[in-house]
Amino acid sequence: MSTSGRVVKRILIGRAMRSDRLSETLLPKKLALPVFASDALSSVAYAPDEILLTLGMAGGALAVTQSWKIGLAVAFVMVIVVMSYRQNVHAYPSGGGDYEVASVNLGPKAGLTVASALLVDYVLTVAVSVSSGVQNAATALPFLRGHEAITAVVIVALLTAMNLRGVRESGSAFAVPTYLFMGAVIGMAGVGFFRSAMGNLPLAESANLTLAPESGYETLGGFAMAFLLLRAFSSGCAALTGVEAISNGVPAFQKPKSRNAATTLLLMGTIAVTMLLSMIVLARLTHVHFAEDPATQLLRDGAPVGDSYIQHTVMGQVAQAVFDGFTPGVVLVSVVTGLILFLAANTAFNGFPVLGSILAKDGYLPRQLHTRGNRLAFSNGIIILAAAAAGLIVLYNAEVTKLIQLYIVGVFVSFTLSQLGMIRHWNRLLAVEKDPAARGRMGRSRIINGIGAAMSGTVLLVVLATKFIHGAGYAIAAMAVLFVLMLGIRRHYDRVRDELAVHEGDTKAQLLPSRVHAIVLVSKIHKPTLRALAYARATRPQVLEALTVNVEPEETKALQAEWDRRDIPIPLKALDSPYREITRPVVDYVKSIRSGNPRDLVVVYIPQYVLGHWWEQVLHNQSALRLRARLLFTPGVMVSSVPWQLEGSDQARERLDENRPMAGDVRRGS
Amino acid sequence: MSTSGRVVKRILIGRAMRSDRLSETLLPKKLALPVFASDALSSVAYAPDEILLTLGMAGGALAVTQSWKIGLAVAFVMVIVVMSYRQNVHAYPSGGGDYEVASVNLGPKAGLTVASALLVDYVLTVAVSVSSGVQNAATALPFLRGHEAITAVVIVALLTAMNLRGVRESGSAFAVPTYLFMGAVIGMAGVGFFRSAMGNLPLAESANLTLAPESGYETLGGFAMAFLLLRAFSSGCAALTGVEAISNGVPAFQKPKSRNAATTLLLMGTIAVTMLLSMIVLARLTHVHFAEDPATQLLRDGAPVGDSYIQHTVMGQVAQAVFDGFTPGVVLVSVVTGLILFLAANTAFNGFPVLGSILAKDGYLPRQLHTRGNRLAFSNGIIILAAAAAGLIVLYNAEVTKLIQLYIVGVFVSFTLSQLGMIRHWNRLLAVEKDPAARGRMGRSRIINGIGAAMSGTVLLVVLATKFIHGAGYAIAAMAVLFVLMLGIRRHYDRVRDELAVHEGDTKAQLLPSRVHAIVLVSKIHKPTLRALAYARATRPQVLEALTVNVEPEETKALQAEWDRRDIPIPLKALDSPYREITRPVVDYVKSIRSGNPRDLVVVYIPQYVLGHWWEQVLHNQSALRLRARLLFTPGVMVSSVPWQLEGSDQARERLDENRPMAGDVRRGS
Repeated sequence: MSTSGRVVKRILIGRAMRSDRLSETLLPKKLALPVFASDALSSVAYAPDEILLTLGMAGGALAVTQSWKIGLAVAFVMVIVVMSYRQNVHAYPSGGGDYEVASVNLGPKAGLTVASALLVDYVLTVAVSVSSGVQNAATALPFLRGHEAITAVVIVALLTAMNLRGVRESGSAFAVPTYLFMGAVIGMAGVGFFRSAMGNLPLAESANLTLAPESGYETLGGFAMAFLLLRAFSSGCAALTGVEAISNGVPAFQKPKSRNAATTLLLMGTIAVTMLLSMIVLARLTHVHFAEDPATQLLRDGAPVGDSYIQHTVMGQVAQAVFDGFTPGVVLVSVVTGLILFLAANTAFNGFPVLGSILAKDGYLPRQLHTRGNRLAFSNGIIILAAAAAGLIVLYNAEVTKLIQLYIVGVFVSFTLSQLGMIRHWNRLLAVEKDPAARGRMGRSRIINGIGAAMSGTVLLVVLATKFIHGAGYAIAAMAVLFVLMLGIRRHYDRVRDELAVHEGDTKAQLLPSRVHAIVLVSKIHKPTLRALAYARATRPQVLEALTVNVEPEETKALQAEWDRRDIPIPLKALDSPYREITRPVVDYVKSIRSGNPRDLVVVYIPQYVLGHWWEQVLHNQSALRLRARLLFTPGVMVSSVPWQLEGSDQARERLDENRPMAGDVRRGS
Repeated sequence: MSTSGRVVKRILIGRAMRSDRLSETLLPKKLALPVFASDALSSVAYAPDEILLTLGMAGGALAVTQSWKIGLAVAFVMVIVVMSYRQNVHAYPSGGGDYEVASVNLGPKAGLTVASALLVDYVLTVAVSVSSGVQNAATALPFLRGHEAITAVVIVALLTAMNLRGVRESGSAFAVPTYLFMGAVIGMAGVGFFRSAMGNLPLAESANLTLAPESGYETLGGFAMAFLLLRAFSSGCAALTGVEAISNGVPAFQKPKSRNAATTLLLMGTIAVTMLLSMIVLARLTHVHFAEDPATQLLRDGAPVGDSYIQHTVMGQVAQAVFDGFTPGVVLVSVVTGLILFLAANTAFNGFPVLGSILAKDGYLPRQLHTRGNRLAFSNGIIILAAAAAGLIVLYNAEVTKLIQLYIVGVFVSFTLSQLGMIRHWNRLLAVEKDPAARGRMGRSRIINGIGAAMSGTVLLVVLATKFIHGAGYAIAAMAVLFVLMLGIRRHYDRVRDELAVHEGDTKAQLLPSRVHAIVLVSKIHKPTLRALAYARATRPQVLEALTVNVEPEETKALQAEWDRRDIPIPLKALDSPYREITRPVVDYVKSIRSGNPRDLVVVYIPQYVLGHWWEQVLHNQSALRLRARLLFTPGVMVSSVPWQLEGSDQARERLDENRPMAGDVRRGS
């Protein structure tokens, strides 16, 4: 690579890092919280909006009277799920995530279902978080409006580059924005409640508008009304995504790992619930009106506000009101909200390749995704995730409200199967445990996981019922496709393993060839050829000959003349090729040797030169590569590549040796 | 491949064909004419339109008074160029195209310039011909209107599939549509002139409209007027593309090759000129009004006809008039016009890969494009051509008028350099020729080529002057990029050749290694491993050991246990890998062997299994491939792949063996 090329690469992908710098200290709770919580906490940036706009479809009154109830329901689910996962953390201190819990206790297909669900949800985490982040940013940066999708795609690309670069995550990189966000939101809530108590809380910018129902929602019957409430609840449950992260990351905690992880989980749940409820209450206190379709639903003096009206996020409107237009406060809330959302998206960039590597280890994904110490595996995962998320963003034009319809279903599939698995786990342990105290603990845990399973299952059904036609169906379809694909890959691996297995008495593979017939392929006399001849001679085969294909008679004649002139002590045989092919005459010749002496081993030596750049490589050795590929299909043949390293190849070697930290290192405690 | 997969592939790409069916008889003149003329003749379908609409920019009067003069000027150039190329054909009976003539006589850079120009023009031939064909088809098939670009791309895709399939061209496949087209156009001209003489030639559908000048062209000064005439002339010169085809194809002619080729060239020129002039005259006789922007320029009773007016091609309007609305006649003209245009596009699919192969032979393009008998080479050429043409079609929305601004400049670069080369050619011969009769012939040829060079050069300047800002500039830029790229590739090849050359006294490459140290890589004990061990033992190296990388300690322990249980008579060494890498420990170990005994040869045996599908292949051997790639950069190492053929690999072998006729076979006389 040229110097300028290396500089560009260094800027984009980063300086190579020695692998012994990879090791990392374990996380204390105060760092573990921000490392694992950004996904769960960030949803407070969009969950209230989704609850309000869904309720608002039936007009302003419903949002006022019901939003806090929905918030409480979500908080209730959150408490149950957190309690349940505290059991997981204690039972699987190895960091067995939902995939492991479901696989071990419910069987591989349940595990694979969880895996499919989580893979889909990782993609949606990126799409939703980045889209919401851009929407928030557009509140402060008006020039982004109308370009949300492209901005979101650019941010996904930046996150991708950052993760490909092997960014060295550190607890503090997470801590600063996460604590700032918690501080900003809880501080804002404190100021808001105080001002409200004092009676001087200003109203939101949309307070003086009225919210008209969407057409078709003007008068809702009891059933339709219940359905709408459930839909709002489903959207609010987005606050629960990310709760499972800690259960995957127990090994990254300081000792006592399980206890610290359980404590952190409780802390996270408490903070998330507090923030969500605060936002909902603040939105009510400041009279925020938030609509799915603001141009037609929001009325000023009875007339729709029209397309020129810009509906800021709930977070933005509340900040504007609480801080009474005090710009630094509003900007701080807006900036940290954007940061935490991108951090949340980044957690998916960590989780996706790690899950992929676990699945690859179990044979459900291509095995090369497993190999640790192989950047390529993680890079592929990162690129697949980014491409899928960018595709969704473009498809849904970065509209959070639309994307959120696909979201959560995966998380709740995973929650439900994990909790069901935990019940089985306790059943198994209870079957053998004699100690009454331990039995008591296990029984209590089983009850908690049972409640968790029932609750998660119910929410899953609610999500499916209310969102299936709005998008959750696509998420289910994507999971099904992944499930079938991964099952097919596993079956393929199993089939190959069976075919390769050595059975007793099956000696075909161990048969020692009687003689070695070596063939050196020669196209012209240059250094690689001479080296190949020398190497072939060094192995002292019974038969050794050089072989060339007569494509251009004059060239062959010149080659033969030079061969004689140089007194090369190996016979040169020229194969005729009426159709100017190279591969076929060689393969036919090799076959003819084998058919004459079927127990002979034919070793074909192919001189090959190695260059510095992949694009240089493209210009060379193509006939050799094709011939090599073809000979691999011919039984009884071994193909030896004799490399000649050209100048510049050492740079390519250096590139191959590069080693950098990988996404997810911190949270795996490696 | 599954049975259904094979059926689908057979339908799309065609049945495999034995290579001995490739041979083809040489072409008599009556078949050579249609084989080589479709490109040149087809331009009569769009050249008159472009002349008329360019003149029409200054209003209807100019088109009426000047179009026949432009036609005559084009015809004059055609005569000169045809006369000149008759000299080429006699001087280079080997089928030396413009590239060879320029390279031999003016040097490699001139040749490369011609090559760049021709490559660009091949792309434009496809784009222009297909777009024009679709425009013609839209006359008859109204549902195509508004979907021209996508239809054109689909047709390019069909042509691509046809050529990838290795369609067996035959003279008659060209003959029928070409002769039909000639018959239809000349027959139509005959009927038209006869009816005109009889005084009962109907008028065209646009005869009762008036043609208003475009804004800015209402009153043109003398200079602007001359410029507009030259621009119309430039567009008309599209009729000359394809004239050079015969000079490339002399070897495909029956004997006496040169004479037959020269006669065919003359015939083609005569027919092309006749058809072009006939169309221009017929357009005038039937009062065709043809505008660049019909909606605003064409006036009915003084008012613009508007967007609803559909402007049919000149060919379509003339046919409608001459045949008096007799539908079969109109449809015949429209269908054969479409056919000849697609045939013209197809000639580029033949020419592009052939030129690519010649350039590859000379080291200007990747060498693998050269190898005859290698479908891949031609397939790559076909795909590159199709992609570039489709890109242009989409970019220019299949509008012939826009595309034609880029066209021709390449052809005239090629004409000019070729004719300049011919002058040099005669100069060289005249310097040694003594026979006065021969000298006289050569002198006459030189004069003709001199006139040809002057004429082509002048037209080139006119084309550049009138079209540079309208698009020809892009064509020039594309040529420049290709030129630099090809020069770079050539330099790279030269550098590598010098580096690989064996100099006297340079014995490093011939050094016989003192000992062979064989290493068999083992990941688990299965058939490929056992075979690799057997093969390695058969070569009787001085040192032989099996090597595994300890990534998972339990797995390594199990492997060692099975190794002992099976009593394998080769020591198994386990390398530690703290970072769970595979490549690095192996490479380091190999290096340590080499540094201890620098004259040793290390042979690394990699067991590898071969599967039937590329996607199966992706699931396997990736660590082995990466390791192999890395070891090739390590000096003193040879990498031997020991293949184990799995079930299904025979199907993949069959696919590799497929052999079909290739694009351009007929016109290369092979």
